[in-house]
Amino acid sequence: MYDLDTTSHPRGDGVRDLTLTDRWNTPLGKPNGGYILAAMLRGLGEEIKGSDPLVAAITYLASPETGPAELRTSALRRGRRVQTGEAALWEGDRHIAQLVASFAGRDGGRTHELGTPPQLPAPDDCVDPRGQGLPDDGIFDRVDYRLAARPGWADGAPNGDPTVELWQRLAGGREIDLPALALLCDSYAPPVMELGELASMTVQLTVHLHRRPEPGWIATRLTTRHVVNGFHEEDCELWDEAGNLVAQSRQLAILL
Amino acid sequence: MYDLDTTSHPRGDGVRDLTLTDRWNTPLGKPNGGYILAAMLRGLGEEIKGSDPLVAAITYLASPETGPAELRTSALRRGRRVQTGEAALWEGDRHIAQLVASFAGRDGGRTHELGTPPQLPAPDDCVDPRGQGLPDDGIFDRVDYRLAARPGWADGAPNGDPTVELWQRLAGGREIDLPALALLCDSYAPPVMELGELASMTVQLTVHLHRRPEPGWIATRLTTRHVVNGFHEEDCELWDEAGNLVAQSRQLAILL
Repeated sequence: MYDLDTTSHPRGDGVRDLTLTDRWNTPLGKPNGGYILAAMLRGLGEEIKGSDPLVAAITYLASPETGPAELRTSALRRGRRVQTGEAALWEGDRHIAQLVASFAGRDGGRTHELGTPPQLPAPDDCVDPRGQGLPDDGIFDRVDYRLAARPGWADGAPNGDPTVELWQRLAGGREIDLPALALLCDSYAPPVMELGELASMTVQLTVHLHRRPEPGWIATRLTTRHVVNGFHEEDCELWDEAGNLVAQSRQLAILL
Repeated sequence: MYDLDTTSHPRGDGVRDLTLTDRWNTPLGKPNGGYILAAMLRGLGEEIKGSDPLVAAITYLASPETGPAELRTSALRRGRRVQTGEAALWEGDRHIAQLVASFAGRDGGRTHELGTPPQLPAPDDCVDPRGQGLPDDGIFDRVDYRLAARPGWADGAPNGDPTVELWQRLAGGREIDLPALALLCDSYAPPVMELGELASMTVQLTVHLHRRPEPGWIATRLTTRHVVNGFHEEDCELWDEAGNLVAQSRQLAILL
């Protein structure tokens, strides 16, 4: 479903048609923001014929609905090493989201890693949240999640620590490409729920895509450290099973 | 000079004229990226009549020159709580940078801080880098820096730890407004220099502006943890003297 649901069809002049399906809906009944980002990033990349996506910055402007949508893309600059474009997602006369993304080849160049991946039990030794008090349709049908323990907020007892580590993969183990990494940065419940805040809406999300993952699960670290006057940031790191950082993101969200 | 050098003049239809001065040049002889961001953010905010800037995501497309430039702005959405616009900076036929920024009132709402400010000696007990092997004109005339110790890279001995903490303020102690916070997120030398990488160029920078600072110096924490195939991220936190987080940023940059 990932391939089908993130496909857009060129209509010419940089405009593309797509359909936001209900298969990636959040528990609030709206298309997940990471799914929207993946579809927009994939369409923009095909349109401007960039290399691999490198960085994607999306601002969510209005609440999305499932159904037909239009992606209006344009190239901003085609450099030798980096290509940049932008894409606007429209549903009828509603401007849903605005994306600026850069694409680049990632061969060679220095690598120096100072971070460490989450320390999680093996996926088979973790909790599958489906049927464990968490929702079990929409995006929970499309992404497999494995948690070290059942989250406190699911039992009405937020633990006060807005940090979550979990495994993720596309349902059934489908290969995870770079746009899918962008999806996985914003596919799980916000860690701010462990502060008892059960409704949060992303305003802006920037994703750095570092490398294609090795096959397998993605170890995910989500954390919120700063809540200021009703807005909060949320950081995400994604690591593959070989222990490589594959993507990271930061978002600014508003408490509802 | 901050007020003068970040001013743009409306020409109508969302277009504004400005001049990038040489007073904020980096040691490479180009206008500093944070200065460009502050000028664009200020012009966009005046044009769309948004509330305070909340989040700014800029992509640098081409190397800037000093001289006259044009800011082309447009509103993307005017919501009740959040207003969003975009701005393109042009120099002649060269598209220099693209900004998407959101603005919002920040009154009330929950605050919950889990981070801690840098532990620095008092500014008067710190090193002023001017005349200490670091450059002493351009942006070093416009921003006051105070370091706990002379950086390793300034003596040709990078210390291997790409984390730097320092005090910053606008020259002479001029009040720091929210666009100036965006400037201070990208005003100092990149910490990746402590890995011996002396030339790095920002591709994309996202700044979260949390609150106006109390008067005084800004404690700044800069860190790079992930260098992958010639690209690196860099995080910044800015704290005021009262111990409040006032802004944070993350950028993706390319090693040259």
